Amino acid sequence: MADIQNKNDAITSRDQDFAQWYTDVCRKAELMDYSSVKGFIDYLPYGYAIWERIQAELDRRFKENGAENVYLPMIIPSSLFNKEKEHIEGFAPETLVATIGGGETLADPLIVRPTSEVLFCDLYKHLVSSYRDLPKVYNQWCSVVRWEKTTRPFLRGSEFLWQEGHCLFETEEEARNNVLTMLNVYDEVGRDVLAIPFVKGRKTEHEKFAGAVATYTIEALMHDGKALQAGTTHYFGTSFAESFGVRYLGRGNKLEVPHQTSWGVSTRLIGAVIMVHGDDNGLVLPPSIAPIQVVIVPVRQQAEGVMEKCHEIEGVLKGLGIRVKVDDSDRTPGWKFAQWEMKGVPLRIELGPRDLAEGKAVLTRRVNGQKDVLPIAELEAMIPGVLSEIHEQMYAKAKDQLDHSVVDVDNLEDLNAALSKGGYARMAFCGEPECELKIKEITKGGTARAIYKEEVPEGTVCPVCGKKATMVVYFAKAY
Amino acid sequence: MADIQNKNDAITSRDQDFAQWYTDVCRKAELMDYSSVKGFIDYLPYGYAIWERIQAELDRRFKENGAENVYLPMIIPSSLFNKEKEHIEGFAPETLVATIGGGETLADPLIVRPTSEVLFCDLYKHLVSSYRDLPKVYNQWCSVVRWEKTTRPFLRGSEFLWQEGHCLFETEEEARNNVLTMLNVYDEVGRDVLAIPFVKGRKTEHEKFAGAVATYTIEALMHDGKALQAGTTHYFGTSFAESFGVRYLGRGNKLEVPHQTSWGVSTRLIGAVIMVHGDDNGLVLPPSIAPIQVVIVPVRQQAEGVMEKCHEIEGVLKGLGIRVKVDDSDRTPGWKFAQWEMKGVPLRIELGPRDLAEGKAVLTRRVNGQKDVLPIAELEAMIPGVLSEIHEQMYAKAKDQLDHSVVDVDNLEDLNAALSKGGYARMAFCGEPECELKIKEITKGGTARAIYKEEVPEGTVCPVCGKKATMVVYFAKAY
Repeated sequence: MADIQNKNDAITSRDQDFAQWYTDVCRKAELMDYSSVKGFIDYLPYGYAIWERIQAELDRRFKENGAENVYLPMIIPSSLFNKEKEHIEGFAPETLVATIGGGETLADPLIVRPTSEVLFCDLYKHLVSSYRDLPKVYNQWCSVVRWEKTTRPFLRGSEFLWQEGHCLFETEEEARNNVLTMLNVYDEVGRDVLAIPFVKGRKTEHEKFAGAVATYTIEALMHDGKALQAGTTHYFGTSFAESFGVRYLGRGNKLEVPHQTSWGVSTRLIGAVIMVHGDDNGLVLPPSIAPIQVVIVPVRQQAEGVMEKCHEIEGVLKGLGIRVKVDDSDRTPGWKFAQWEMKGVPLRIELGPRDLAEGKAVLTRRVNGQKDVLPIAELEAMIPGVLSEIHEQMYAKAKDQLDHSVVDVDNLEDLNAALSKGGYARMAFCGEPECELKIKEITKGGTARAIYKEEVPEGTVCPVCGKKATMVVYFAKAY
Repeated sequence: MADIQNKNDAITSRDQDFAQWYTDVCRKAELMDYSSVKGFIDYLPYGYAIWERIQAELDRRFKENGAENVYLPMIIPSSLFNKEKEHIEGFAPETLVATIGGGETLADPLIVRPTSEVLFCDLYKHLVSSYRDLPKVYNQWCSVVRWEKTTRPFLRGSEFLWQEGHCLFETEEEARNNVLTMLNVYDEVGRDVLAIPFVKGRKTEHEKFAGAVATYTIEALMHDGKALQAGTTHYFGTSFAESFGVRYLGRGNKLEVPHQTSWGVSTRLIGAVIMVHGDDNGLVLPPSIAPIQVVIVPVRQQAEGVMEKCHEIEGVLKGLGIRVKVDDSDRTPGWKFAQWEMKGVPLRIELGPRDLAEGKAVLTRRVNGQKDVLPIAELEAMIPGVLSEIHEQMYAKAKDQLDHSVVDVDNLEDLNAALSKGGYARMAFCGEPECELKIKEITKGGTARAIYKEEVPEGTVCPVCGKKATMVVYFAKAY
């Protein structure tokens, strides 16, 4: 059965049915499997290994920016959860609630964490009593549960893996800096690790996180022209801390309330990688997160010296720290090519008896099919550079796609036309939630993804209400 | 408040009240905090950083032994959970059960995973259909929930962090090898990373895991003479796989049932480190897992050149990949010494104006107070070796303690006397659960920790029932 799953002759084409293509890739590249629990998935080794690499890249950068990792309980007593009104309104409808523990009914039911703001506040109440205890820049890697009606692998699930940073600062300025610093970390990981360019900016009033003063976002553009919110950072002001009674003795010997932030990205990033880079042959992985960066496929592997040379090259590349695999299975080369294309391996090396005789090998890049014939003796020196080039090619391709998808409009008709085609339309508007709702209705689902400019030329009006425009916003249809 | 918590003048001595000493160390070394949820703890940065290092050391070794990481749902439908009778009897009384999702009562309540055997079986049923799909050597890092009445930080909690390996093999031999390979990985991490010698062996019939054919264990000896089960590996035979209908087409073209194993260690290892190495001044950490390996404490830090030299040494050590910190706070050196002793930092470097003039620094080892005066110019060359020596000294000390705690007995009176003193008593017995229960009663809590020898000299009898003895067992009182 596993063999049959690996064959990619049955993959739906992207342009025929993008949703089905996406599911096909998730399954046939063996990233995940559907579990017996509706809405929950099993992360298989190939998918989880991608997440481990994304985690490592993020974690290192968080720590460089002063973050420390902690781990808090996976359940929240409902009495505690109910303390912050705005927050609970956002999450209450999609909670999973435990009511029985050790065979007995719980007096205070326990909510499986959908996010951990309240637990962090509760901890900070114990830990913080003086300005000397600040800042606190804590991060947690964990899974959270949100009871979703419709789910899609990596994009929306009843349980997903993520990180959530929750921080306290003495001043608003420090807190606002943290929110932008971490947004930039996400943006950098997009550019340097995932090869994904993001649209980056503040969220409108209507789209911001429940309870936040300001939310910032990174949004990626999928192949089908829809946006995907890939990560957010939030400035909370002091409201959460006030609700939970977090106070500290300030430098002026007065009790103060700290300023709070949070920031998070999730396994959704895997979904973004699939939908930005993938093609009709399957997954296309950037080298930084590919579990296998180079696959070596022998041609006529019984021929004298072929397998030996393949393993020799493997050893050389391993010595460089490159994740490399020789496919010495009894399949045909063609089957193997298709298999490793499906799995998105960035670079393939083919080697047959004729190549061996000429001392050369054929390199094929997954991103664009580019073929290079290189002397075997030069592989050690060349391949690290080839992998870097592949990353750059992937980023450039995605950037080009993003740049070409953006149009500027100044009226609802053009907005509607643009969003129907897919991609982003930038338009000035007043920023009011009611106008945003009307835009959503008119464009059949278009939403404000991120604020492009916080200022507009004098005299610009909102095309919805006709009042003064205050910002230019990226609109798009989104996942 | 955080400042007050850091003072260690209030720590209980180990011999006065070991349980209180343990709690004091957990709190004052800032490893954890009690959360608002009864029985659940918050892992603070210093404690979590220790876990991250233990994880990394284990994960690397698992992967070297062929394991792949996956992630499965954190909840198990009760209908699925109930499929394996023996297993559920072991866990049912301590489960946390979710009954409400998205505001609606769930038809099939969801059990928050106490362990994931059934989910892995369920996944393997999808994934495995041919001998070509075997072996599967999967591992998961996650938290599990067991509703405990009495809890202690890191030792027994309603939620704890762990890894659980779950594997399938074609043959019993491969499965049994896997169980021993992973037991040896745990043992190696004990010796080379945690500086803890383990008693290692098979569990008796009475002590083995619910549903297992054979359970193997590593047990550490705590300062108070009690044993701590620190990790287990299990061979399940084919019973789980049968219950869940996991079948594959074997090499002989017949349907076969695979052989299954599991293996796990948890944050209990942190508890073991505290109780094996700690002393009346607090935590003592082996260098491999210490978040800070070397602390540099300036003496008369305002004196010319002192701080500069401290930071210069810090830079040199960082360059070697050593985790080092200069304590440049405005506390007195004595306060700092006590603080970093409490936190178990393996090596302290003191540097004052006089040392500076002489070009020397004073090194103090946490494990035994050993002081060395070394030329500053030689620190770079010497310190990696000093850290290795500290590890060896810690291991030797713990090994010595363990070796001296073992006595051989051949009757119940001596067994009782030995277990009352603390430590291990080795005794031959018949291996029957009834006799084990009687031993527990007579010794007020002594249990069979691990089988020392699976053979006994001809004519040896069980001191409880007088029948033929079949094994020699390590008995001890345990956590």
